[in-house]
Amino acid sequence: TGKRRSIRRWMLTIIVGVLQGLIAYFCNMLSRKLSTTKWTYVYAALQDEVKGEAWSGKAYFLFLLYQTFYVSIASFMVYLEPVSAGSGIPEVKCFLNGIALPRIVRIKTLFCKVLGVTFSVAAGLPVGKEGPMVHSGAVVASAISQGKTQVCGVDTSFTKIDAFRNDKEKRDFVACGAAAGVCSAFSAPIGGVLFALEEGASYWSTKLTWRVFFCSMMTLLTLYSVKNLDTWWGQASTEKLFSFGEFASLSDGEVNFSIWELFLFSVIGCLGGLIGACFNATNEHITIWRMKHVNHSKLRRVSEVMAVSFLVTTVSFLMPTIWGRCTELPVDVEDWSDQEKELVDALVPFKCQAGKEYNEVASLIFTDADDAIKQLFHFREAGEDDASTFSSAALFLFFMPYISLATLVYGIAVPSGLFVPSLLSGAAFGRLCGHLLHKLDHTQGTFADSGSYALMGAAAVLGGMARMTISLTVILLEATGDMQYVLPLMLTLMCARFTGNVFNEGLYDIHIHLKRIPFLEQDAPEICEHHEIVANQVMSSDVKCIRPVERVGVIHDLLSSYGHSNFPIIDEHGTLYGTASRNMLCTLLKHRAFSKSSDNNMNPLGPRRVSPLLTFSEIESVYPRYPTIADCRLAPEDRSCFVDLRPYANTAAYTINETASCQRTYRLFRTMGLRFLSVCNHENKIVGVITRKDLLPEALLESLIRVRRPGRELG
Amino acid sequence: TGKRRSIRRWMLTIIVGVLQGLIAYFCNMLSRKLSTTKWTYVYAALQDEVKGEAWSGKAYFLFLLYQTFYVSIASFMVYLEPVSAGSGIPEVKCFLNGIALPRIVRIKTLFCKVLGVTFSVAAGLPVGKEGPMVHSGAVVASAISQGKTQVCGVDTSFTKIDAFRNDKEKRDFVACGAAAGVCSAFSAPIGGVLFALEEGASYWSTKLTWRVFFCSMMTLLTLYSVKNLDTWWGQASTEKLFSFGEFASLSDGEVNFSIWELFLFSVIGCLGGLIGACFNATNEHITIWRMKHVNHSKLRRVSEVMAVSFLVTTVSFLMPTIWGRCTELPVDVEDWSDQEKELVDALVPFKCQAGKEYNEVASLIFTDADDAIKQLFHFREAGEDDASTFSSAALFLFFMPYISLATLVYGIAVPSGLFVPSLLSGAAFGRLCGHLLHKLDHTQGTFADSGSYALMGAAAVLGGMARMTISLTVILLEATGDMQYVLPLMLTLMCARFTGNVFNEGLYDIHIHLKRIPFLEQDAPEICEHHEIVANQVMSSDVKCIRPVERVGVIHDLLSSYGHSNFPIIDEHGTLYGTASRNMLCTLLKHRAFSKSSDNNMNPLGPRRVSPLLTFSEIESVYPRYPTIADCRLAPEDRSCFVDLRPYANTAAYTINETASCQRTYRLFRTMGLRFLSVCNHENKIVGVITRKDLLPEALLESLIRVRRPGRELG
Repeated sequence: TGKRRSIRRWMLTIIVGVLQGLIAYFCNMLSRKLSTTKWTYVYAALQDEVKGEAWSGKAYFLFLLYQTFYVSIASFMVYLEPVSAGSGIPEVKCFLNGIALPRIVRIKTLFCKVLGVTFSVAAGLPVGKEGPMVHSGAVVASAISQGKTQVCGVDTSFTKIDAFRNDKEKRDFVACGAAAGVCSAFSAPIGGVLFALEEGASYWSTKLTWRVFFCSMMTLLTLYSVKNLDTWWGQASTEKLFSFGEFASLSDGEVNFSIWELFLFSVIGCLGGLIGACFNATNEHITIWRMKHVNHSKLRRVSEVMAVSFLVTTVSFLMPTIWGRCTELPVDVEDWSDQEKELVDALVPFKCQAGKEYNEVASLIFTDADDAIKQLFHFREAGEDDASTFSSAALFLFFMPYISLATLVYGIAVPSGLFVPSLLSGAAFGRLCGHLLHKLDHTQGTFADSGSYALMGAAAVLGGMARMTISLTVILLEATGDMQYVLPLMLTLMCARFTGNVFNEGLYDIHIHLKRIPFLEQDAPEICEHHEIVANQVMSSDVKCIRPVERVGVIHDLLSSYGHSNFPIIDEHGTLYGTASRNMLCTLLKHRAFSKSSDNNMNPLGPRRVSPLLTFSEIESVYPRYPTIADCRLAPEDRSCFVDLRPYANTAAYTINETASCQRTYRLFRTMGLRFLSVCNHENKIVGVITRKDLLPEALLESLIRVRRPGRELG
Repeated sequence: TGKRRSIRRWMLTIIVGVLQGLIAYFCNMLSRKLSTTKWTYVYAALQDEVKGEAWSGKAYFLFLLYQTFYVSIASFMVYLEPVSAGSGIPEVKCFLNGIALPRIVRIKTLFCKVLGVTFSVAAGLPVGKEGPMVHSGAVVASAISQGKTQVCGVDTSFTKIDAFRNDKEKRDFVACGAAAGVCSAFSAPIGGVLFALEEGASYWSTKLTWRVFFCSMMTLLTLYSVKNLDTWWGQASTEKLFSFGEFASLSDGEVNFSIWELFLFSVIGCLGGLIGACFNATNEHITIWRMKHVNHSKLRRVSEVMAVSFLVTTVSFLMPTIWGRCTELPVDVEDWSDQEKELVDALVPFKCQAGKEYNEVASLIFTDADDAIKQLFHFREAGEDDASTFSSAALFLFFMPYISLATLVYGIAVPSGLFVPSLLSGAAFGRLCGHLLHKLDHTQGTFADSGSYALMGAAAVLGGMARMTISLTVILLEATGDMQYVLPLMLTLMCARFTGNVFNEGLYDIHIHLKRIPFLEQDAPEICEHHEIVANQVMSSDVKCIRPVERVGVIHDLLSSYGHSNFPIIDEHGTLYGTASRNMLCTLLKHRAFSKSSDNNMNPLGPRRVSPLLTFSEIESVYPRYPTIADCRLAPEDRSCFVDLRPYANTAAYTINETASCQRTYRLFRTMGLRFLSVCNHENKIVGVITRKDLLPEALLESLIRVRRPGRELG
């Protein structure tokens, strides 16, 4: 059966990959369709206004109408399922870290998230659909692996896949799904694998790596196949759902930068780190305010969305109007590549003469964010002189409001990703830097190639915001599609991360901490390096223990009074016998798996075992919705019965000696993915327990203070 | 000081990266120079023969002379330092796995390896310098971090970097060095990071990841800088030390394959897996034979090298001679890219008319392996008809002998890598497949693009041989430099790995096992899934314990009689007190850190501690060359003295309960990087110990048999 189970596991992984690919394709197509519809009407209205065929303000009114309509649908989805707001990456990180947040991996969440993000992106808010795609992949994987859903309150076990109904399998599947999500968002299969490993794997397992790899490969294959349905037998198109476009070499066999420009790239990295840190700090403050004043009421959340959407719409319309200038379209485009010609076609006239002129600011705002990114990356500087396609002033006029709005928007009650806004504002920033440098010395035609600088700027701001490690590098490399940028990208991302970390942490971590989730980082906090802290000082010594054969009443009282997820079992000498999980105890009580009251005079700790009344598979069959203590109705006479925990106890639970260093404790806890660790003394007597919360940096700091000032505590 | 130490750590990491970059550059340049010299003379002699200006056979004689000369230098290097033979990747894997093989990270090994591989590559043996570069990086990192060398038997602590003299720091540095090595070999910085993580990190630490990342970035930066010394201010050259060249798109915006060809690629992957499995099996048998009959004598090893070299030389010369046919050089090359024109120039005339014709087989053999790979990847199929640059017969005539010789050569006493031979033979195989497919249907110009098929073949054979996971994919992607191949490469490598694994394991693992090194894989062996095996059955119950305060004589006898690296310390009740390492005990004895014989009548287990007579830093100062028991000279009256181990014991060593499942035991052992694990019972009394050897699949199988047939053992 091990083999059969393994085959089933791989089959399910294929399904996860394919399904996530289809979802991403659907979401992408729909949001493009929606936004194209919007732009078509708005462009037409704008031209009508110019020609005087429509009343002035019609375009703005139409624009506002569409934006508000789309945003309200997105907002309604979050109204239906509040956890579908935001990017979802913090939630997936937490899930992979071993913290099951409620309702995160439900089908309903998936539905609301995907539809919501489709509309919020189509509404032209400064949001991306990349984070939500990762979340979507995670839900798909969880749903497929569990084969169980509670949509509409009905528990439909529509498949018989119960071999995978446990935390470990589910987490492995979610890792696969997250990778598929990254892959579908960025066409970055390897970046996806690394994302899943970096966030999820406390332990690098070759088998899991291959499965994650396979899953994201399936997603990519699906995307390719769907995109190339018409040309299955011809050459496949390179077009991806999301791509940075093709970076052209300025000259054959040479890269678009000089060695010494790497120094400039690292400066851009540092600046990007600074921008990211500001972004994070501002968003943190806004989020704190929002948690206090908005988030407690659904109505307020919806009103906030509407207000913010109105603001975004107005600013978006105002910026090109303020700019006002019309720039002529480049004309000598014969030797331009297809991609560049397409970019010229995508320029937006706004109130200029269509087909001859364009509005620089509108070309960045009145278009989809991915197209705007491509414009910034690839638009050739036209003409012989210094005339730029996007002048420095236009870039600045776009960059400042856009990044401010992005800061404001992340956290409102719509599904919203952060990658694309960061990339877009970063690209504008980078191209701006390139322009300024190019002005310093325009004798050399290739110096400060604005496309390369835009790419570095995008990487820098994204890196400064997210602070992810190697997975982000690979994602960006794969999206760029060109290995010549590997060194500059590595350098830029590293500088951005180091600069940003001086001020605060990554935005996802900030949000995790604001939600007070006990998230454990991979590395032990620095405070652990103070060698004076040992397990003994970290643990909480207030241990609730039970005996191997215990009275029902005691267990019931314990479960009702304390929320602990595990209870140590100790024998008559106080020696650790094993541990019992809350879920198991509740199930035993609910199923009345205890001895009849007639056994009341038996020796409770004697060698005779009350035979197991429930099997493990019976206990686990209801995973993950075990009974709670409220489900257990006990008659008063039951309270004196005995439960024999010996067949159920985990007698080989990990323990740690009270003299173990804090670092060693942290490493055992984090690496083994524990939620509960018993601390024993030299004689294996339990002296305390350590839970996730005891290992958070703040808790450790408290322990350290307690150690250093023992007098204070007594006083 | 934590901060200062961290800065020093990063500084040393920079030095490692830069130094490895320089070494790789030097090695590459020198071997190119050497082989160019050889080819120049041989080509000239060949042309002279054709013109009748030289005696027939002069070219062969010259060729043999050069080959033998180079090979003998390579062989001499291995004579000087036997561990510098072979690829070095198995050794680095073992080191990162926690097994310190003797002399692997010495400066002398570095010198012999680098110089040796330079000559063995220049000699035209079917070997690459990629594996040795990884080894070189590891040695550089170890040397730089330890700042200590024993060249010529002198222990010159030339620096004061003793904060990094311990196993953990050294292993982290070696991981950085290995990444730098991969980066310098393939210009694949991210592949390098993944290689180090995959092989080394039992535990994914963000900090270490960044350091490894930084180190390989430094190597790449060094390589770029050195290569572009002349054009620092202009556009940097993309030319790398090792690259697959630039893959040109056959048409704009489309990839060079159809979706349905992915199926063909996976078939090639399976075939490559088969070829790799054959390669591994053959080499395994040859290696076993070699271990029995050759390796015990240095003279025999040198003779073998000479014989094999003679064989390679003769076959290399014979093949083009047998082929004999002269093909005309393509003439209409105006629209070809620079790269393609260079490839045309690189074709070898052999005995044909230079400048007009070339010998197809000689163009693959009589050139450097990297150039041959590029020919196979990029050479355009010339002309309108089916005439191919390399005809199928020529490819076959090259492929068969080359891969056979490669099987024979890996394992002889020269430094030799396996990547390039695998890639080259795989490329020939893949291009051959492409040819055959193209013949089936040549109506479609783009079907079965021979370059793409060559790339897939190369990936398939390499994957079938090495069976590495994600790191290999990334290395190949980075070397290819083109993201359009991400999906085909993933698919091919996955198929190759799965097919290969049906028959045997990767070649590096085979060699590790042949050397009987107790290497622990990341995943617990499958046998652990039999839940009936628990720690109790895996452990060896023959435990040698000592007391917290123990007589010198007892310790001395124990150390002399048993080779264990750790000894449990138990108190009077048999409860585990802690563990003592062999190194520590030897140091204590050598420094006579025991109570005077006048204390003979004290209560040995009383509460009064003999104050620590040696500090930890005194014990650790001699790392990694601790005294052995033979260094401890004891007078007979010393034997009754007491050593107080309590200040030195590791009281928080990891332990596991005897009822823990085999899987849990393996996971704890492997993930925490242990070498020794005490098994305790419920009362914390020691019942056995587990060492690395107990967890190898064979040992586990024995345990399982013992469990299942308890009768047999008694009988």
